[in-house]
Amino acid sequence: MATQANSVPHPILVEGLHNRWHPDIPAYASVKPGQVFKVQCVDWTGAQIGNNDFSDDIKNIDLTKIHNLSGPIAVEGAEPGDCLVVDILDVTPFEKMPWGYTGIFELENGGGLFAREFNSKAAKAIWDFKGIYATSRHIPGVRFAGVSHPGLIGTAPSAELLAIWNERERGLIAQDPSAVPALAFAPETKGAYIGQDLDPAVEKKIKSEGARTIPGREHGGNCDIKNLSRGSRCYFPVFIEGANLSVGDLHFSQGDMSFCGAIEMAGIITLSTSIIKGGVEKFALKQPIFLPSPVDPMYSAKLIFEGISVDYHGDGKQYNMDATVAYKQAALNTIAYLMKVYLLLSAAPVESHVGAIVDSPNACVTLALPLGIFEHASIDILPKEEGLKKLDFGQCAIRSDGVV
Amino acid sequence: MATQANSVPHPILVEGLHNRWHPDIPAYASVKPGQVFKVQCVDWTGAQIGNNDFSDDIKNIDLTKIHNLSGPIAVEGAEPGDCLVVDILDVTPFEKMPWGYTGIFELENGGGLFAREFNSKAAKAIWDFKGIYATSRHIPGVRFAGVSHPGLIGTAPSAELLAIWNERERGLIAQDPSAVPALAFAPETKGAYIGQDLDPAVEKKIKSEGARTIPGREHGGNCDIKNLSRGSRCYFPVFIEGANLSVGDLHFSQGDMSFCGAIEMAGIITLSTSIIKGGVEKFALKQPIFLPSPVDPMYSAKLIFEGISVDYHGDGKQYNMDATVAYKQAALNTIAYLMKVYLLLSAAPVESHVGAIVDSPNACVTLALPLGIFEHASIDILPKEEGLKKLDFGQCAIRSDGVV
Amino acid sequence: MATQANSVPHPILVEGLHNRWHPDIPAYASVKPGQVFKVQCVDWTGAQIGNNDFSDDIKNIDLTKIHNLSGPIAVEGAEPGDCLVVDILDVTPFEKMPWGYTGIFELENGGGLFAREFNSKAAKAIWDFKGIYATSRHIPGVRFAGVSHPGLIGTAPSAELLAIWNERERGLIAQDPSAVPALAFAPETKGAYIGQDLDPAVEKKIKSEGARTIPGREHGGNCDIKNLSRGSRCYFPVFIEGANLSVGDLHFSQGDMSFCGAIEMAGIITLSTSIIKGGVEKFALKQPIFLPSPVDPMYSAKLIFEGISVDYHGDGKQYNMDATVAYKQAALNTIAYLMKVYLLLSAAPVESHVGAIVDSPNACVTLALPLGIFEHASIDILPKEEGLKKLDFGQCAIRSDGVV
Amino acid sequence: MATQANSVPHPILVEGLHNRWHPDIPAYASVKPGQVFKVQCVDWTGAQIGNNDFSDDIKNIDLTKIHNLSGPIAVEGAEPGDCLVVDILDVTPFEKMPWGYTGIFELENGGGLFAREFNSKAAKAIWDFKGIYATSRHIPGVRFAGVSHPGLIGTAPSAELLAIWNERERGLIAQDPSAVPALAFAPETKGAYIGQDLDPAVEKKIKSEGARTIPGREHGGNCDIKNLSRGSRCYFPVFIEGANLSVGDLHFSQGDMSFCGAIEMAGIITLSTSIIKGGVEKFALKQPIFLPSPVDPMYSAKLIFEGISVDYHGDGKQYNMDATVAYKQAALNTIAYLMKVYLLLSAAPVESHVGAIVDSPNACVTLALPLGIFEHASIDILPKEEGLKKLDFGQCAIRSDGVV
Repeated sequence: MATQANSVPHPILVEGLHNRWHPDIPAYASVKPGQVFKVQCVDWTGAQIGNNDFSDDIKNIDLTKIHNLSGPIAVEGAEPGDCLVVDILDVTPFEKMPWGYTGIFELENGGGLFAREFNSKAAKAIWDFKGIYATSRHIPGVRFAGVSHPGLIGTAPSAELLAIWNERERGLIAQDPSAVPALAFAPETKGAYIGQDLDPAVEKKIKSEGARTIPGREHGGNCDIKNLSRGSRCYFPVFIEGANLSVGDLHFSQGDMSFCGAIEMAGIITLSTSIIKGGVEKFALKQPIFLPSPVDPMYSAKLIFEGISVDYHGDGKQYNMDATVAYKQAALNTIAYLMKVYLLLSAAPVESHVGAIVDSPNACVTLALPLGIFEHASIDILPKEEGLKKLDFGQCAIRSDGVV
Repeated sequence: MATQANSVPHPILVEGLHNRWHPDIPAYASVKPGQVFKVQCVDWTGAQIGNNDFSDDIKNIDLTKIHNLSGPIAVEGAEPGDCLVVDILDVTPFEKMPWGYTGIFELENGGGLFAREFNSKAAKAIWDFKGIYATSRHIPGVRFAGVSHPGLIGTAPSAELLAIWNERERGLIAQDPSAVPALAFAPETKGAYIGQDLDPAVEKKIKSEGARTIPGREHGGNCDIKNLSRGSRCYFPVFIEGANLSVGDLHFSQGDMSFCGAIEMAGIITLSTSIIKGGVEKFALKQPIFLPSPVDPMYSAKLIFEGISVDYHGDGKQYNMDATVAYKQAALNTIAYLMKVYLLLSAAPVESHVGAIVDSPNACVTLALPLGIFEHASIDILPKEEGLKKLDFGQCAIRSDGVV
Repeated sequence: MATQANSVPHPILVEGLHNRWHPDIPAYASVKPGQVFKVQCVDWTGAQIGNNDFSDDIKNIDLTKIHNLSGPIAVEGAEPGDCLVVDILDVTPFEKMPWGYTGIFELENGGGLFAREFNSKAAKAIWDFKGIYATSRHIPGVRFAGVSHPGLIGTAPSAELLAIWNERERGLIAQDPSAVPALAFAPETKGAYIGQDLDPAVEKKIKSEGARTIPGREHGGNCDIKNLSRGSRCYFPVFIEGANLSVGDLHFSQGDMSFCGAIEMAGIITLSTSIIKGGVEKFALKQPIFLPSPVDPMYSAKLIFEGISVDYHGDGKQYNMDATVAYKQAALNTIAYLMKVYLLLSAAPVESHVGAIVDSPNACVTLALPLGIFEHASIDILPKEEGLKKLDFGQCAIRSDGVV
Repeated sequence: MATQANSVPHPILVEGLHNRWHPDIPAYASVKPGQVFKVQCVDWTGAQIGNNDFSDDIKNIDLTKIHNLSGPIAVEGAEPGDCLVVDILDVTPFEKMPWGYTGIFELENGGGLFAREFNSKAAKAIWDFKGIYATSRHIPGVRFAGVSHPGLIGTAPSAELLAIWNERERGLIAQDPSAVPALAFAPETKGAYIGQDLDPAVEKKIKSEGARTIPGREHGGNCDIKNLSRGSRCYFPVFIEGANLSVGDLHFSQGDMSFCGAIEMAGIITLSTSIIKGGVEKFALKQPIFLPSPVDPMYSAKLIFEGISVDYHGDGKQYNMDATVAYKQAALNTIAYLMKVYLLLSAAPVESHVGAIVDSPNACVTLALPLGIFEHASIDILPKEEGLKKLDFGQCAIRSDGVV
């Protein structure tokens, strides 16, 4: 009978938190290829942010403790040179925590793509999850379906790969060690967390060498790709025995235009795996490849903004085929068109395409804003004779000292 | 009766070719808001490329003569500060020329995004147009629906805006005047073409000051945005009386990953216009915005490649949040996975998303290859246990001296 | 902090099971407009079907006990003539029961669209839920994303409306009272269940008058519309105070071609409501209308079969504009093309369009089979020179006496 | 060079008009497999309808002359039992006739699905084609992208198949020979047209036996399937040597809900063919199957109406699983919601799904109205607190005697 008696729920792996990438962190759990399993994840800050109406927690966030990952999870039979196939079967918030947040960091503590341009002060928006939808009391008038995904998922690096990472990133830091925001983040024992009791010498080695979990790299990591969503299949290179997969930083939703984060949440990710022997060579796997999910919100009507590699929102300087500059202009054009959408652009399923990097000197990047996310006013967003009606996008949560 | 007797075809504006942007080029034709009209366009090279099986015409192309535009077309009533709304109603090849081409330029003559990496030698693929589809005798096994669009469309700059362009681009060139490929292209009288008989003094002024038609800029221009396709609606800033719209460089198809061009063609574009008074201020129009067409090929199954801002296909250098480097790696990962797809990636409707520019130091860019374009072998493109079957993508047209 | 402390989960309404529609069934629970709430639902048979490999439970199913609904749920302020707006925010299986089933009924007990043609014997397929996907050990080689929805949702009828239903359905039954399968199902005290302790006279009245929950009617009911899925918004007419919404018969997935059921499951539906006063008149609401979800699996490549209103799979008879006959031929053409897909067609997200009912005497109906649901063999489904490779779609669960 | 000199346009086959299906009509032209060719087509009435503002031409239409087809076109090598693969590469109006029409027929002359319900009087709307879009001076406020397709395409029947058609359709007519509209249309020498000079005995045979071109049948024919659009690939059974393909009745656009026609036009269809030997048996081809085009307008936001098999818009009668009745109710619910959309529903890309034919006695059919077709008022179509704003959908062209 259709009762719980003959039902076998998928097992839940309790988290083995860690926040560094290192081959010597032992697997916290082990799974067989083909097995469906669930992994519990804290939000990326490790529960430093609250469901409230001030942004002091963002302002004072301890960034040495961030990007906590669940795992590592060893897959039986995976060996260096193999391809680890990972099916991301589901991503959901905890049933008891139907909310998440999007934050803007202080220039001096976290920064973000526009931190310098806007001299950023801490702010945030809290999002309520209502089934597949998110709404925010801090950004009224919008509602959209989440494209939930892990911001961060990857296999453990080998010792050799880790050494390459550390060397090249230290080289970049050395170009301007006092840059604000920092150009990159070197290994740092402060705040390092392994989540398991290890021999002190091993622990010290991991903490002093372990790569920070902030950027994405060849193993995957913090790529923040919105389409690595539930239903997608990802092919990772394997660098050590067991592959040692770690995952975390769940997002309820995110656009391509994530300059300050996504809708961050704590929750559960459901996975299964398989192995293709020798897949790194077979597929020339320098970095993961993936098949997107057949399920993606269809917001076909869009308003699209362009940007070229001229900093016309800043000093007017001409850059040569610089897609980052073009991407910023597309975002700033959107912000100029529709005031107060800064947080919204990080949270909603906007898409940013590289139009072309071919016609010197201007790369062209576009940003597409889906019209269907505006609940009561879709038509009001479009250009029209009488100009744009001022939309009330409310007031996001700011610092308790009132500084914005 | 349903005969030609009571039918009124849309008028065809014979081309008024020019290849520079300058406010003093007089309007070649004038249209009323609301009128549907057609514009004939040569291909971007002005018919320098032939439907044959050698690439010598690409090798020897005269690049001073390129990006021929049809127009300018004045819109009655348009004034500086207005927004010119342009409906791109259709884009088709000439009935008598159902073919186009994709070319790779020599490093020393044209270049392209990977010209240096690959020490490019001229090559090309000829595409046959069969209704909505393109196939190529030089790239067998693929067939895809075109997303036809103008590579180049824009309003005429004012004298002030033109001066800004010329100053900032000359500044960039000055950083490395002997760069190959060049960093940017200054005004150049050689090859300049106006298409109308003008007072010699005016002609001289236009030729010596006129902005090159190569890059996109604030007025639109050569943005190469694949989704500015038939069915889209575009909002341009107006800088001079009449707006003076010019259009050309028609593409039968193009992906986001256009490092060496699209499927270039000659043909006809059908347009209509309207005016929103004072639209530049109303919409904060620093650059055109647009609504994409409701018609776009649906190739939902895709294989997606990632790239980060580390030049791991080159010298391994770490860059800081550089989307251009990340975009290149995504393309090179695709090329490593699927040999010989260089020309295909420029022609097919691939999409390139900026995954994120948020986690220092690595920007993340993705490239999505639609599986539906591979006629007989869609399943063979996917990663599988037995590795990838060698696909025969044929041989593109090369130089008659055999240098590749 | 992002802890459970400041999180408020959505409330869960424990089911108030009933299996008849009647205005005198009291509301089991009450909600306020705007409130997000969850409702637990048993599967449509009330747990008569087991996760096992024989179909005896299907063969012996007690159909007087079916279509158990959760509710009624009164919405504060709803009055007759209002429009009740219901947001279907999520639909999920119970975490502890990640499975469902599709069944074929015996001709004499349940029937189905093709029961007579095939002299149906009980059979079933069990589906395992893996996140957003379903797979079946009884139909190997397919995997698809569910479009989860309630098969059955509606408001309570007024006494007047109930009387109309009973009269017209009794009229139909009277045309052929002994038809197998039955033409319709009259009120029946046997198996009737109300789920609450009521005054015996009221209980007797409800059981003797209550409309069966089998068909859809003007209030919604068992419409089995696959696109009434999570994320959709539905507008129901209100017939009594409080509207008294009931819901059940959850489906993990279903196609348009549901001749024997969907992937049936037990689980939780998340809802919220609002009221539009006088909406029945404002919107001419003879039957619910709805906005589909922005989230729907994108299986763009499809193979489409046609059918016309000639029974060429049976006695060759010509019907006049009969879409039901045309629909059957489209299904039978699909089954002839691809053997053993009977159960699959009910479960997978196939789409059936009414091509046209305009050209006498043949209505034309199409059935679209998405190619993306075939895991290892998408290309093998297409027509090709060498004919179709025999696909192994396994063996569904049959009766323990071996009769098929 | 990219000139016409080395370009070879696709050949145009001048029409060989005929309006009956018969195996003895000789091929008008012959093509080789793989060849791309164009076929010119008159509109389905043979130019009886004019671009004007009265509907007298609809009222007085001579229906014996209709459904003129271009062809037959023999494909070299096709034999009975083969599968003829036809690629519909493009469908366009004549450049000199950028317009089409949608008509409502008189009850006594043409009828239509609702002819009896509405006691139909002749009316029409003229549509102007502007590139991919259609607009109408008779239905202001809407604009949509066409899904252009041939309403009518099929292979010639064998003598045996033709005999079956004639017998079964005569059987239906015999059930009610005086029905208005007629139940079916028997062979009729009046108005029969072959388009070629034949031996009088052969001509007489064809005219007295030839099947009318009104309905779709096993060979394809007048199926009016909107998704058999440009870009689709269709697999036809071959019944005679050469297959003898005929095509006509081009539609600029049509919905699933075509009760009185589509946007009818004259124009050009571009085709190519191939042959799969023995395909009828290999694919169990009782009727054509097809792969839809990857190009289809994306109007993702829709308002969906339901209908069940109870004639609640008429006499309230209960039908048993009758999808035609349910389809009518869905249409009538839409018409009740949004006045004056009768002609629009035939022309616009609406979709009609068979929700389910499983729960006795009510089949459920839905009609989805895309919101994106309403130019200025998309939001106004949705149900809202203040009710629906009266939309001005103008006045369609009516009879010159003013009878409506």
